[in-house]
Amino acid sequence: MAEPASVNAPHHLLALEGMSAAEIEPFLDLAASYALLSRSRKAPREALRGRTLINLFFEDSTRTRTSFELAGKRLGADVINMSVANSSVNKGETLLDTAATLNAMRCDLLVVRHAASGAPALLARKVDACVVNAGDGMHEHPTQALLDALTMRRHLGTLSGLTVAICGDVGHSRVVRSNIHLLTAMGSTIRVVGPPTLVPSSIASLGNVEVHHNMEDGLAGADVVMMLRLQKERMGAGLVPSAREFFRFYGLDQRRLALARSGALVMHPGPMNRGVEIASDVADSVQSVIQEQVEMGVAVRMAVLERLSRMRVPT
Amino acid sequence: MAEPASVNAPHHLLALEGMSAAEIEPFLDLAASYALLSRSRKAPREALRGRTLINLFFEDSTRTRTSFELAGKRLGADVINMSVANSSVNKGETLLDTAATLNAMRCDLLVVRHAASGAPALLARKVDACVVNAGDGMHEHPTQALLDALTMRRHLGTLSGLTVAICGDVGHSRVVRSNIHLLTAMGSTIRVVGPPTLVPSSIASLGNVEVHHNMEDGLAGADVVMMLRLQKERMGAGLVPSAREFFRFYGLDQRRLALARSGALVMHPGPMNRGVEIASDVADSVQSVIQEQVEMGVAVRMAVLERLSRMRVPT
Amino acid sequence: MAEPASVNAPHHLLALEGMSAAEIEPFLDLAASYALLSRSRKAPREALRGRTLINLFFEDSTRTRTSFELAGKRLGADVINMSVANSSVNKGETLLDTAATLNAMRCDLLVVRHAASGAPALLARKVDACVVNAGDGMHEHPTQALLDALTMRRHLGTLSGLTVAICGDVGHSRVVRSNIHLLTAMGSTIRVVGPPTLVPSSIASLGNVEVHHNMEDGLAGADVVMMLRLQKERMGAGLVPSAREFFRFYGLDQRRLALARSGALVMHPGPMNRGVEIASDVADSVQSVIQEQVEMGVAVRMAVLERLSRMRVPT
Repeated sequence: MAEPASVNAPHHLLALEGMSAAEIEPFLDLAASYALLSRSRKAPREALRGRTLINLFFEDSTRTRTSFELAGKRLGADVINMSVANSSVNKGETLLDTAATLNAMRCDLLVVRHAASGAPALLARKVDACVVNAGDGMHEHPTQALLDALTMRRHLGTLSGLTVAICGDVGHSRVVRSNIHLLTAMGSTIRVVGPPTLVPSSIASLGNVEVHHNMEDGLAGADVVMMLRLQKERMGAGLVPSAREFFRFYGLDQRRLALARSGALVMHPGPMNRGVEIASDVADSVQSVIQEQVEMGVAVRMAVLERLSRMRVPT
Repeated sequence: MAEPASVNAPHHLLALEGMSAAEIEPFLDLAASYALLSRSRKAPREALRGRTLINLFFEDSTRTRTSFELAGKRLGADVINMSVANSSVNKGETLLDTAATLNAMRCDLLVVRHAASGAPALLARKVDACVVNAGDGMHEHPTQALLDALTMRRHLGTLSGLTVAICGDVGHSRVVRSNIHLLTAMGSTIRVVGPPTLVPSSIASLGNVEVHHNMEDGLAGADVVMMLRLQKERMGAGLVPSAREFFRFYGLDQRRLALARSGALVMHPGPMNRGVEIASDVADSVQSVIQEQVEMGVAVRMAVLERLSRMRVPT
Repeated sequence: MAEPASVNAPHHLLALEGMSAAEIEPFLDLAASYALLSRSRKAPREALRGRTLINLFFEDSTRTRTSFELAGKRLGADVINMSVANSSVNKGETLLDTAATLNAMRCDLLVVRHAASGAPALLARKVDACVVNAGDGMHEHPTQALLDALTMRRHLGTLSGLTVAICGDVGHSRVVRSNIHLLTAMGSTIRVVGPPTLVPSSIASLGNVEVHHNMEDGLAGADVVMMLRLQKERMGAGLVPSAREFFRFYGLDQRRLALARSGALVMHPGPMNRGVEIASDVADSVQSVIQEQVEMGVAVRMAVLERLSRMRVPT
């Protein structure tokens, strides 16, 4: 699943695997400044003026698409949404012909979501544009991990030496992989917590990862508790745990949260299943930074788009 | 169905019920000036520069969505369309979590259409953005009533002392309710005209309303004849009247129009079913202002967006 | 199928039939300059500032819609996409009522794709906007022929005296008709090549056209080989030729391409069915200008939008 280093050219963001702290931090620093500018509606609208950003989504995701659309528009780019349900991909066009078409249209920034791991990397080999992976199969979702990291850094002051418990439906989550790569590079420890059926054994080899099948053990003393969405829509019929059963064993309630470090952050990539992986009162508690994650998402995407754009050798 | 006054904070437009003439007129005055500027392509593109407008449509309505999109773009806002078919609401997210997400994205103006009465008001309690109700269930559709009023005022010079006949499928129409509240506040009389099956008896209590089940009585001497769309798609199977039958008893033809005041205005919120609720020659006659209603729609939405934006306490 | 000359008012582009070389060339010249400006991201963003462009697509076509959207945005227009699946046309609104609505919304530029031949011309009679036909039934697709012509002119230096072989599914292609009108006006010869079932006999009467049912005869000495997409989705069940069979008799491979003039251009309107109408190595060969066609598409659409806009008498 690892991509050759050549694909991680500095004008693409395809994966966090293999990136060092020194490569990751400039994105976070720039995003932190964009977060402030966004609050005061002072984003630099000339930054991407005249640049074309195409959101190429082979899977629906209104939240992520909207976040990138906002990021691009706030920096003055021309933003075009291409969703695949309507596209010529359905007329049998290959991914590489799509890449050629995007080049010909002088696309500068290409944001790709695809059900197949590696699809953004394949496009990156063929397009002149900067490519941002907005989620590919079970592989990576780098901007999600960056926004998680920025949120943690704002509250905890560092990304080093933390213990981050990521809990629930680990097996269906590309977010987990990107978080493991980033947090390991930053010097933190990840605990992956979930039932054996939802935690693939291979995950422990990805970085500085401990595996727990018991919530109480996994949460003990954690600085951050990140709950994952139970992705019922990706599970085969008959394999979906009942919401009630799942919450009983793996849901985050106040009692379990009390096992983590006092004041530990509660995170969730959204959208939440309240009462399934997380109790409503926990989601809405003062420890929850779930809404701030969304805000940092726009800021991180602004930073990624603007920084990659500067890294690109003009064509 | 009435909302508490607190919800009608001056930076939201959720309902016309309870608004006074003094509160309504500034919207009409500002819209009148935008109508002139739009004709000469001189809308002030700096008015909403850097502001984010999100069109959150839980029901499809290309006409209304396009009208708000045009209004926002002509004032320089960044406009994002979110339709629900693709959204995380379908993944089980609650309306309140959607509100939190929109806040986090720094949405400034939120336009909402929803099948449930009260959904925009619920969102307004939770979002920092100005909220505009673009139609909620059988409740209200305030910008439609404002554009109707502006169109009448341009032709008749006043909104006071008029007799306005609203005819047809009254029961399925939120437009009727908003018109009744607005026209009553302005000092006009509303006649609601339609078959007993399509006119709920409760409607007479909403304002200065007379109910007629006979077109000839309802139209006699009216200053304005507003025909409603027969909303077959909202009726249960077996309950849809035949088009021919409906036109015979409740369609507006030249013979019936002649019963109204000479030169009475003919209106329709669109899209029309020609030959069902209105004869083609009437829709296209010199008395028809149906096309002008659409034009005033964009101007009214510009006025609402810009005015609410000014009313909002910065966050 | 011919439109009355009056419809081809200079502020519409509905069909190339009947247009002279002198009328066509200014579009190509302007497009050539926009192609250069687009490469250096120096499109004049003031050209259509404050103008409203509506993409009204009654048939899906992500490529064509995106090309017009890019063209409009690069010239600074406000671009609105209206796709018909969601629109009030589905609520029974007539095309003429749609036209009235677009007028009322102060639409300046209207791009229309429709399954019925003549629909854009019908709209052009009723709207104030400049109308661009983006493909209507089996009739015309003028911007496609213009982009094909610009691509040829860039490589061959002229559009006069050429022999252009257009091959494959001729009967389902509006592109062929527009190309025949344009190339005939410019003084070139068109060879239409395909199986009798896919080449209507009427096509020979459209211009300077030879009909061939044998690829070897059709390609001999041609300056340009334009392959058409096999439009299986428009064929009745049971009538679709097998891909293998079709490629064997009518596919473009290196052996057949060698029959054309040395260095002949290979073109395709996209999206391609590789291995059906064209071999992959031919599509990717140095003779292929397929990607450049897409690039010229954006430039041609910029030229058409800007030039029609200047031709229009202000309303």
